[in-house]
Amino acid sequence: MCESNAYMVRDGRQELIMESVGLIRSGANGVFLKSIFGETLNVNAKIMEMDLSGHRILLEPENVSR
Amino acid sequence: MCESNAYMVRDGRQELIMESVGLIRSGANGVFLKSIFGETLNVNAKIMEMDLSGHRILLEPENVSR
Repeated sequence: MCESNAYMVRDGRQELIMESVGLIRSGANGVFLKSIFGETLNVNAKIMEMDLSGHRILLEPENVSR
Repeated sequence: MCESNAYMVRDGRQELIMESVGLIRSGANGVFLKSIFGETLNVNAKIMEMDLSGHRILLEPENVSR
C-alpha cells in the first residue's frame, strides 16, 4: 500500500494530523484528507510537499497572506 | 514503489505530464515535480488531488483567478 502520513507544518515543526492517508483533495475550503480506514478530515491548509517514496505529506496553514 | 503519474487537468481532460513521480513540492513558482528517474519539471499549476491508492496526481493550471 502506498498511503502516507500527513503532517501540518507550524513554526517549522511537523505535527501528525492523519495516518495512512489514501486521498487528498485541495479545494476552496482547504484540504480534504481521507484515510484508507475511511476517516476524513478537512483542514484549512494547502499542500506544501509530498514525498511519495518517504510516505510523507506536508501541509501548511492556509492563513498565510499571498 | 509508490510513485504516481501526474496529470494536468485542462477543460476536463487529463494530460499526462510526468510518469513515476516521487516528489512534489508546491511553492511560489508553481509545482515542482521529480520522478524516481531524476527527471524534474516545473509547472505553473497547483495540486488539485492525489489518489495514493490509484497512483494518480491531478494538477490544475494556476492562472485561474481566485
